[in-house]
Amino acid sequence: MTLEKTLYLQSTEKDIAKYVIFSGDPRRVERIITLMDDVEKVAVSREYHTYTGYYQGVRVTVTSTGIGGPSAAIALEEMYECGMEVAVRLGTVMGLKSNLGKYIIPKGAMRKEKTSHTYVDSSFPAVADYDLVACMNESVSTNEREYENGIVCTMDGYYTEMKESKLSREMGRDIPGEIAELHKYNISGIDMESGVVLTLANLMGIRGCVVTLTTVLDNLKDMLKDDFRVDEEMMLAKIVLDGLVIFNKKGL
Amino acid sequence: MTLEKTLYLQSTEKDIAKYVIFSGDPRRVERIITLMDDVEKVAVSREYHTYTGYYQGVRVTVTSTGIGGPSAAIALEEMYECGMEVAVRLGTVMGLKSNLGKYIIPKGAMRKEKTSHTYVDSSFPAVADYDLVACMNESVSTNEREYENGIVCTMDGYYTEMKESKLSREMGRDIPGEIAELHKYNISGIDMESGVVLTLANLMGIRGCVVTLTTVLDNLKDMLKDDFRVDEEMMLAKIVLDGLVIFNKKGL
Amino acid sequence: MTLEKTLYLQSTEKDIAKYVIFSGDPRRVERIITLMDDVEKVAVSREYHTYTGYYQGVRVTVTSTGIGGPSAAIALEEMYECGMEVAVRLGTVMGLKSNLGKYIIPKGAMRKEKTSHTYVDSSFPAVADYDLVACMNESVSTNEREYENGIVCTMDGYYTEMKESKLSREMGRDIPGEIAELHKYNISGIDMESGVVLTLANLMGIRGCVVTLTTVLDNLKDMLKDDFRVDEEMMLAKIVLDGLVIFNKKGL
Amino acid sequence: MTLEKTLYLQSTEKDIAKYVIFSGDPRRVERIITLMDDVEKVAVSREYHTYTGYYQGVRVTVTSTGIGGPSAAIALEEMYECGMEVAVRLGTVMGLKSNLGKYIIPKGAMRKEKTSHTYVDSSFPAVADYDLVACMNESVSTNEREYENGIVCTMDGYYTEMKESKLSREMGRDIPGEIAELHKYNISGIDMESGVVLTLANLMGIRGCVVTLTTVLDNLKDMLKDDFRVDEEMMLAKIVLDGLVIFNKKGL
Amino acid sequence: MTLEKTLYLQSTEKDIAKYVIFSGDPRRVERIITLMDDVEKVAVSREYHTYTGYYQGVRVTVTSTGIGGPSAAIALEEMYECGMEVAVRLGTVMGLKSNLGKYIIPKGAMRKEKTSHTYVDSSFPAVADYDLVACMNESVSTNEREYENGIVCTMDGYYTEMKESKLSREMGRDIPGEIAELHKYNISGIDMESGVVLTLANLMGIRGCVVTLTTVLDNLKDMLKDDFRVDEEMMLAKIVLDGLVIFNKKGL
Amino acid sequence: MTLEKTLYLQSTEKDIAKYVIFSGDPRRVERIITLMDDVEKVAVSREYHTYTGYYQGVRVTVTSTGIGGPSAAIALEEMYECGMEVAVRLGTVMGLKSNLGKYIIPKGAMRKEKTSHTYVDSSFPAVADYDLVACMNESVSTNEREYENGIVCTMDGYYTEMKESKLSREMGRDIPGEIAELHKYNISGIDMESGVVLTLANLMGIRGCVVTLTTVLDNLKDMLKDDFRVDEEMMLAKIVLDGLVIFNKKGL
Repeated sequence: MTLEKTLYLQSTEKDIAKYVIFSGDPRRVERIITLMDDVEKVAVSREYHTYTGYYQGVRVTVTSTGIGGPSAAIALEEMYECGMEVAVRLGTVMGLKSNLGKYIIPKGAMRKEKTSHTYVDSSFPAVADYDLVACMNESVSTNEREYENGIVCTMDGYYTEMKESKLSREMGRDIPGEIAELHKYNISGIDMESGVVLTLANLMGIRGCVVTLTTVLDNLKDMLKDDFRVDEEMMLAKIVLDGLVIFNKKGL
Repeated sequence: MTLEKTLYLQSTEKDIAKYVIFSGDPRRVERIITLMDDVEKVAVSREYHTYTGYYQGVRVTVTSTGIGGPSAAIALEEMYECGMEVAVRLGTVMGLKSNLGKYIIPKGAMRKEKTSHTYVDSSFPAVADYDLVACMNESVSTNEREYENGIVCTMDGYYTEMKESKLSREMGRDIPGEIAELHKYNISGIDMESGVVLTLANLMGIRGCVVTLTTVLDNLKDMLKDDFRVDEEMMLAKIVLDGLVIFNKKGL
Repeated sequence: MTLEKTLYLQSTEKDIAKYVIFSGDPRRVERIITLMDDVEKVAVSREYHTYTGYYQGVRVTVTSTGIGGPSAAIALEEMYECGMEVAVRLGTVMGLKSNLGKYIIPKGAMRKEKTSHTYVDSSFPAVADYDLVACMNESVSTNEREYENGIVCTMDGYYTEMKESKLSREMGRDIPGEIAELHKYNISGIDMESGVVLTLANLMGIRGCVVTLTTVLDNLKDMLKDDFRVDEEMMLAKIVLDGLVIFNKKGL
Repeated sequence: MTLEKTLYLQSTEKDIAKYVIFSGDPRRVERIITLMDDVEKVAVSREYHTYTGYYQGVRVTVTSTGIGGPSAAIALEEMYECGMEVAVRLGTVMGLKSNLGKYIIPKGAMRKEKTSHTYVDSSFPAVADYDLVACMNESVSTNEREYENGIVCTMDGYYTEMKESKLSREMGRDIPGEIAELHKYNISGIDMESGVVLTLANLMGIRGCVVTLTTVLDNLKDMLKDDFRVDEEMMLAKIVLDGLVIFNKKGL
Repeated sequence: MTLEKTLYLQSTEKDIAKYVIFSGDPRRVERIITLMDDVEKVAVSREYHTYTGYYQGVRVTVTSTGIGGPSAAIALEEMYECGMEVAVRLGTVMGLKSNLGKYIIPKGAMRKEKTSHTYVDSSFPAVADYDLVACMNESVSTNEREYENGIVCTMDGYYTEMKESKLSREMGRDIPGEIAELHKYNISGIDMESGVVLTLANLMGIRGCVVTLTTVLDNLKDMLKDDFRVDEEMMLAKIVLDGLVIFNKKGL
Repeated sequence: MTLEKTLYLQSTEKDIAKYVIFSGDPRRVERIITLMDDVEKVAVSREYHTYTGYYQGVRVTVTSTGIGGPSAAIALEEMYECGMEVAVRLGTVMGLKSNLGKYIIPKGAMRKEKTSHTYVDSSFPAVADYDLVACMNESVSTNEREYENGIVCTMDGYYTEMKESKLSREMGRDIPGEIAELHKYNISGIDMESGVVLTLANLMGIRGCVVTLTTVLDNLKDMLKDDFRVDEEMMLAKIVLDGLVIFNKKGL
């Protein structure tokens, strides 16, 4: 039991629900909680904005992780310290197939990021929890959207592995070529945190999954337009919250 | 289409069903097919004994892989060449928990074996197909057995990583210590082929899973007694065949 | 030239000064700019809070990176896209020597983090710019504080490499033992971003350095008290700003 | 002393001769023993078919290993447990030079397979025993065949490193290109077990060598025709048995 | 205190000054000492020629290391055993920029050589001492030459990484292509010892730097002509000795 | 054909015999040639002292390599450029068994040094030439000495892997413990060049071997006394020269 506040998220066990939603962007947290009732602010500390409230009677905590594995791992560790039992990463993903606007609820993630490697070597599979994924699949269908349960790839270098930059061009890197390599492995999308969330959930012995919306295609070939994107990101939040309600009802 | 026989399994596309069961032990193949109807021998070549027949009206191929990743990969590749769409590894596993006699239908496998690394680097997750796993879970329950959907660890060195030997003692290896390390990662069991089967199924874009019976605990601390083991291994075969029938009915 | 806003920091070339200060904590950015004049908000986007203003007549941009190498690399890349010529990381560090309250202006960093490895292999040295370090050293002395120019170690795993947690205890990790290992190499302190900043500055061909205040000793053995810490972090900001003025005067 | 039967090969010390011949293919074992006298079946268990008999008065055990390093290592370990002093791998090899039908008795093997790496890191040389190789060279010459004592390469992935497949084509692999790389290192042939046999023999402190017949050229460019192949594989068996007799006479 | 002679350099603590200059070529040592007074021969042992004398009243030891990291590390270790406090590598370097005849006083080195890796993993930065570099920079300017403080790359394979050979051509290596890769990282020059000198100096907690003259461009595209080279190498020696006098005066 | 002198050894094809002996210590070269007739000095350049003469009518070149893989590889490359067909490393070795004063003519070497890794990955075996080893074995016996044909281990770090030093003690390294690890692999001795010589000879397609005298036991537990050592090192030279005469007579 943690009576003291945790170091970065400034949370204690009584502040935190057993269901925790993790979003990369602090601003998105503030949008998600508009769907919830009786929300209390736990803390706004560094990139971690943390709130706890209710959705259809189920107590849920929503927090942000910032970008990348190192800060996501800190968020997961401190929520686990505070009693988290179910972890859902809610985010956006760069799609590698013609899947703009679709939901990817991956069964697993390539661990090309290296933060999770400080926990367990790369041979360990970053796999999602089956029951939780089934509930999220159901929620997507109920909300009349499409999903796929493929494999995503999580990486550390946005401008070395996912998108060209001034520096990548000066160094002569072939980023589209590196992304093309991933097509060989049937990869659905690329992001920067899923591998960490899935690996740590397995090591913690808790339920974990990832629900992502494809908002952009590889190397920014196409992306969701602004208004539609904003609306659809609210749908993403609703889908995850509905999915947790389904999961909660099943008493898993 | 392969009109010629494949190199090692001596099979052609017309010999092979879309559902293929892989067993390590050639002798077990011969036992499994006693549960099936209208069985035809495809070939007995090296450690690969291959038969195709029917179970409750569903056409199924059963073949053996021998021990280890290199020969298992050959079997998978040649069955894929012949049109396989669903791959199920049926086997035994060394349990790391007090799970003797239980069924492990892993959601994923640690890829400590290295054959799959010649296909894709170690960051790729060896994950099972969700729908197929759900059918196998159902089959276990229907047959009044218990299952868990944990993570197994697949390794190449039986007498360096799984059990002591004359040589391991002379070299002063601490095999129980190495196995204890796996307990930290919540590993359910150890085997020598699952990581290969799950990785290749994902790369092939087909459905794959593993259904294993815990017949022995780590470093041979306890094992299923002979008669019970023989009976229970027939149950393992029935469970997998029933699971395929369930899967087939769902039209997935 | 970037007329469009960059993807994450939402900045254009005209918004950004050639001198850029990077701080991990978004809130610290807001404190630093109280020392500056004519400050304009460039953008508050995700964990990146970006402002440009003047200090003793020198135009300076201050932005936040969030925690960890992946988000720090994005900040550096986008500032480089906008014309940055000098990059200074301003932060806090976990001291490994009896150096609480002292300033570490490292000559180099161990690249145990892996984001920089997506740019160049680990053999590349994360070294600071000599002229810039000399100016920062001078600024520390002028402000009557003490500094050392040692080597720091940058890591990805806060709760696997720097501090114990519920999970690290469950997994039986020996974090103090791992930190002790670093003492053998004369390491002054540990952080999560310096290796990325120094590596990228060298690859970009710009000036880069790190100025850090030791606010805590390893595994949280001792830490700066709240009030003193707040005051001293303002001094850290003043030291960096003064150092940039010295550098600017030298016309380097 | 092993009074109990070993786990996989089901053998005890009294069943096994000090000279042991290992063949990949179980069926070839049954052909080899037709050249011997007073043969007794030790066990047929999984892919391990084991017989002990006499050849020109010398007691010899012949067993099969199945394909690949993991199952070969098990066979070697259990034979060592039973008192083996000399290990000869008898097999076929994919030739990289114009050496179809020739005998390769390698002085060493590239350890691209990974099973032996679970014993000792890759810097350890997989070298053959000089005296044993000299006897096998002599036997080849006496039997009017040609040999070379080059270096072979042992690999784990048949359809990723040695021959194209449906999957390798879908993944866009350049297998001929990877084999061409081996030509740079003067490699004589490729197989899947030699590196394991030679490494383990050195670690066990016993005599070990490999006698292989080139039955196929790289990527199946050419291969021995059926009848000739069958005859020549019997000659391979005779050469190894004659070589052991020569070795035995020298009292080494 | 070492009363006995060290194993390879045959030196004792009383023979060795606190300032030690290391040169690769034994013959160059004999030329350097012509600039010094009261020189005594310490030992000529293997490739290590060691002398101690005075330059402008400062006691200095000069020794040779031979080519490569392994022998350089031995020289550094034994000099450290004898009380060395400042280590300067004086050498020549293959330039990667149009910098023939210029002085490179690197701020750091890529550790592509592997001897230093037996001390500390590759993430450790091979950085020079700032104060010592500042003195050497000043000495170059005083002697009316030009310098740069870039990053050099230290390698183990002269004929695999730096220059073509009969064997490299037979093996089809693309050495100019590999060198071109280094241009991407802004590398100033290539040598075979600097990474070792800088890494070990940091681990020993002593001052270390490298002063090198560019005598040849990459893959021998151009080189200093004989007479000029001989003269300029004497200037290199004078610059290092003058730099040590400057350093000594500052009482650092 | 090399009409120009090679870069470091300053040799041309007409200066160099097809038999080349490599010794680490330049001074030992001068002692070896006292056993030969009509000796001409080819060059004394850096650590490379090169002479060509006759021994019992056979033309032989003797050169020095200095300590370590990088300089040994340069010597081998340049001799190969000049037409070398047989390479024999003549040296001393640190024995790991009770083999002081015995000759180790290794069948292979662990490639823990890394220079040879710039040629081919670590899976390649550093094996000696069988015919050449047989001649050297015969020469040892004829000269009434004892030999063994074990495996040696070649390393880059003398004071990190072979012997304690001031620095190794400060860093808390357990060098005896690391050497003890090698005992598990039946290693006969440790040196710093053999792995390079054997690997390169195989890649060049020439004959290569190593003949070493054990002059010291691990971590300097015991060593040959001065007078006896000097005499025995002359015997080592005689054995290698006699061995080359035997090899030459066989017309191999």
